[in-house]
Amino acid sequence: MIGRLNHVAIAVPDLEAATALYRDTLGAVVTAPTAQPDHGVTVVFIELPNTKIELLEPLGENSPIAAFLERNASGGIHHVCYEVDDILAARDRLKASGARVLGSGEPRIGAHGKPVLFLHPKDFNGTLVELEEA
Amino acid sequence: MIGRLNHVAIAVPDLEAATALYRDTLGAVVTAPTAQPDHGVTVVFIELPNTKIELLEPLGENSPIAAFLERNASGGIHHVCYEVDDILAARDRLKASGARVLGSGEPRIGAHGKPVLFLHPKDFNGTLVELEEA
Repeated sequence: MIGRLNHVAIAVPDLEAATALYRDTLGAVVTAPTAQPDHGVTVVFIELPNTKIELLEPLGENSPIAAFLERNASGGIHHVCYEVDDILAARDRLKASGARVLGSGEPRIGAHGKPVLFLHPKDFNGTLVELEEA
Repeated sequence: MIGRLNHVAIAVPDLEAATALYRDTLGAVVTAPTAQPDHGVTVVFIELPNTKIELLEPLGENSPIAAFLERNASGGIHHVCYEVDDILAARDRLKASGARVLGSGEPRIGAHGKPVLFLHPKDFNGTLVELEEA
């Protein structure tokens, strides 16, 4: 069911500093920051040859990563995102297996303009899993 | 400098259950478990089209992931591994920039039989980074 690893998301307290670290210290290709007010984050993509890293900084009130950064002040790996061909079929299969889908259970349009769902980390070895329809 | 994302490593308390979760619930291709006593882990690879997930279970005394699992009883994302062409050049560049290399600073032979180094998570936004010579 799951396909490519679309991205690994890392929450960071200071996006400019984190971008400089990946660009200058690790020598990676980085994009310009993009504010995504609908998702409560500003994002920089680290473009690797086979996948990407998303650096996420909180934006505005009620950012979904604010609580994570309160617990992890210097940042940390926030989630992994796997691609699926059919997100509704994936959701139904997961729910039938007992896995919990976060929120309403209906896909939302994610940061890449495609339908996404998040799965409960307690059902996946402490890992927050995002599924994105490819 | 950094190239492909070689893998994302997830520490798990029960490798058999975690493997079943990725195989049956997420429908991924999984390998048989491999004991790596030199590294204090038993490993299952989740083979995705563009990279892999490594599920790590502690093996023996003094496993390097034992303390992590004490803090994260249900498991969690342990590290990410980026490929580099020349690990000694990468190390020297990183040290010159002030980043801390864990251990002696000399590359060890990692779980894939290639030279690896680990970088201090406090220098990389709370993310434990492994570098592997490709």
